[in-house]
Amino acid sequence: MRLEKLLGPDIKLLLKEDPEQLGILLDEIHAEDLADLVGELDPDEAAQLLARVPAEEAAPIFERLDEHEQEELVELMGPESVAQIASEMAPDDRADLFSVLPDAVGDEILEKLEKVDPEAAEDVREIEKWPETAAGHLMTTSYISISPDENVEAALQAIRAYVKEHENAPVYNVYAMDTDERLVGILSLRELIAAKPFDLLTDIFRTNVISVPPEMDQEEVARRMAKYDLNVMPVIDDKGVMLGIITIDDVIDVLTAEQTEDVQKLGAVEPLDVPYFKTTFIEFIKKRGVWLVILFVEEFFTQTALRYYDPVFEAVKGASYYVPLLISTGGNSGSQSSTLIIRGMAVGEIKPRDWWRIAIRELFMGLVLGCGLGAIGFLRVLMYPDQHVDFAITVGVTLVGIVMTGCTIGSMLPLILKRVGVDPATSSTPFIASLVDVAGIIVFVHVAKIVMASVIEAHANGAGGVILHPH
Amino acid sequence: MRLEKLLGPDIKLLLKEDPEQLGILLDEIHAEDLADLVGELDPDEAAQLLARVPAEEAAPIFERLDEHEQEELVELMGPESVAQIASEMAPDDRADLFSVLPDAVGDEILEKLEKVDPEAAEDVREIEKWPETAAGHLMTTSYISISPDENVEAALQAIRAYVKEHENAPVYNVYAMDTDERLVGILSLRELIAAKPFDLLTDIFRTNVISVPPEMDQEEVARRMAKYDLNVMPVIDDKGVMLGIITIDDVIDVLTAEQTEDVQKLGAVEPLDVPYFKTTFIEFIKKRGVWLVILFVEEFFTQTALRYYDPVFEAVKGASYYVPLLISTGGNSGSQSSTLIIRGMAVGEIKPRDWWRIAIRELFMGLVLGCGLGAIGFLRVLMYPDQHVDFAITVGVTLVGIVMTGCTIGSMLPLILKRVGVDPATSSTPFIASLVDVAGIIVFVHVAKIVMASVIEAHANGAGGVILHPH
Repeated sequence: MRLEKLLGPDIKLLLKEDPEQLGILLDEIHAEDLADLVGELDPDEAAQLLARVPAEEAAPIFERLDEHEQEELVELMGPESVAQIASEMAPDDRADLFSVLPDAVGDEILEKLEKVDPEAAEDVREIEKWPETAAGHLMTTSYISISPDENVEAALQAIRAYVKEHENAPVYNVYAMDTDERLVGILSLRELIAAKPFDLLTDIFRTNVISVPPEMDQEEVARRMAKYDLNVMPVIDDKGVMLGIITIDDVIDVLTAEQTEDVQKLGAVEPLDVPYFKTTFIEFIKKRGVWLVILFVEEFFTQTALRYYDPVFEAVKGASYYVPLLISTGGNSGSQSSTLIIRGMAVGEIKPRDWWRIAIRELFMGLVLGCGLGAIGFLRVLMYPDQHVDFAITVGVTLVGIVMTGCTIGSMLPLILKRVGVDPATSSTPFIASLVDVAGIIVFVHVAKIVMASVIEAHANGAGGVILHPH
Repeated sequence: MRLEKLLGPDIKLLLKEDPEQLGILLDEIHAEDLADLVGELDPDEAAQLLARVPAEEAAPIFERLDEHEQEELVELMGPESVAQIASEMAPDDRADLFSVLPDAVGDEILEKLEKVDPEAAEDVREIEKWPETAAGHLMTTSYISISPDENVEAALQAIRAYVKEHENAPVYNVYAMDTDERLVGILSLRELIAAKPFDLLTDIFRTNVISVPPEMDQEEVARRMAKYDLNVMPVIDDKGVMLGIITIDDVIDVLTAEQTEDVQKLGAVEPLDVPYFKTTFIEFIKKRGVWLVILFVEEFFTQTALRYYDPVFEAVKGASYYVPLLISTGGNSGSQSSTLIIRGMAVGEIKPRDWWRIAIRELFMGLVLGCGLGAIGFLRVLMYPDQHVDFAITVGVTLVGIVMTGCTIGSMLPLILKRVGVDPATSSTPFIASLVDVAGIIVFVHVAKIVMASVIEAHANGAGGVILHPH
């Protein structure tokens, strides 16, 4: 499991003493483990190692490093050798590399790449012109195309030629394209193997092809591939011209990254672009500070509301001590509802048009849950000796009202946000909680005003009110 | 996009008037879309439709339905025809079907299946003996195995034979196994196509195979396949015997389901097993109620604490109105920290042994964020005319202390939970918030006791205290 820890020292030694032996050792190790290993080395040792191995062996390691490691290595290795490695990388990973590099550095390397491998440079430009989260940016331009007039044997030949040239590229399908580069049919490797050598492709390929346009958001692409259990998805423009393919490994990365983003939003953090330890302190202060300030300002309304209802809290002394308990219960039920709805929408189980079914359901759920908590709250208040029964009733009824409010706001807000085009995950747990807090105070005070009307009125007329905390 | 809505009425009509025509229509549609379509029909219509099409066409539809739809249909169609369909399903989907059915129903169908297809029944038993979240349960027992002494042409023949028999099964690799069913090497389809027909498999197959044991948790399997960009992973027992393969489409489902579980836990909901609308009302009450009650009891300590510190709040009248604002800010910063740490651990970026680096980082982050919010809070209090400057200072300093507390508790608790073997996602946002709430009150009161010592002492000696809410 921790191969890189075990081999790290050996590699360091070999680098110093017998660099020629490195190739033999590295041949035995999966590229992904090598990437881990390189990640554990000091940057200059890593650069030295990558410089030692041929570019076609360095490429699969390099493309598996994370963006920051890549950036660091590019500086140490110089544009010339990076261009060499880039020419051997898979087109989609190559384009990713260029999109993480600072523009000036990227341009310099692209210039060198132009000389080493003009086709690769062209690929980079083709992929880079799409937005970073679009299908076009996720795709690779490397796939096997063939004329539909050819036969199975010719397709197998095309695969052999492709495999010889692209050692690490996975092959799932061959794509039959007409002279205008429009996709007309697909054949998988297994179908080709099962077919007879002289079958014409036109007679056997599948034509009901599922594809995506290059503008489609990567998350939508990922969901679609997951839905149809596809390992590879062709990207096709509005004229039917084939632009590239998206492979399943990239889709898994997208799904994981999007999930991380959603989780962070739910926790009221602006999504980080890089792992926890790679995020700078300043970056963190910005990404967390924004939301803390927004929530702080939002929460100021609780103080304003409490202050506004001062006469009630003066009449029922100690009632304000119940406020955090009551309003946080509303916040909790609201967080539950919003979590369920947001996740349901993210995986496509819930659509905004379902809103009324959800509203009814959540309202009833709030009623039942509120009654349960209300009963506990009622009994808890009564556990204090000399406690006012009216106040116990107030707490119980307030809880019912607050939980119903929480469930309703928590479930409806994400749907409203989605409707107006804002990412529903923005209505994070703390955001919902703060909203519900203010609503909770209003519910509490109004229930108190009704249940304890006589006490509050008497206090307004100069009487002493009730004291809920006899010592 | 909403194909099932468009075609639903046509299908219903055809079912009534001309069921023979159905086959022709269904041939044109992807199995996944058909599953959507069947999901939209009334259960008895769906049962009718599945009974009309041959079992080998019904199987891919049936295996894509969700668990509850499957359960419902099994009842309507009877064990006989379900066994027919089950015999045509992929082994892993077939095992899933049996694991969702009530034991009595499952046994009845398995009995029928035994007669139709004894091998399939054996497969079900083989897969079902592993825990539901283990690699062994996720695997399919259907793959292409071959003796290592054979040549490439024989392997291609084996693929042709397999494809003919398993129309819908994906094929990625052939597995070379010795006479004891131990896996000795792997060849991918692309490697086979690229090789010469009379190459011996022993000479060309890959032997450094990445595999998993059948006991491994499915989430770990998913992460490993994602790491190595594998589309298929062999499952091998401790004797090296090959048991089956896990394919990438199942892994994506696992990742998505595990994410949903994590998100729901973070939102303080016990993970649902089924989509929002399929979860019964009672189920929801249970899954949400447990956490609401736990949090409610936890939050009761805020009331106890406030009551305990009554003398302070009596001396500084109106201070209690600031409590929700102050403690929720602590909760928010705590939620942020816990979210970042929990997600970091889920994707493997953060390990429990990193705890001290995190502790230092979060403490400083809390200091900086707290100072920012403290400054805003200080100014906000001063915006009230006649407000006590000492109280503004109290609020400012409290915020610094509270945010630092929040960041520390929020980041450390998930690490501690992980360390003692509890899922860190259990320390949900609301849970952290409630913990920090009580801590926040203690911080607030102690800061006030220091900054406003004279006022509080004077009040204890019979003076009037300060009133923060002049009307």
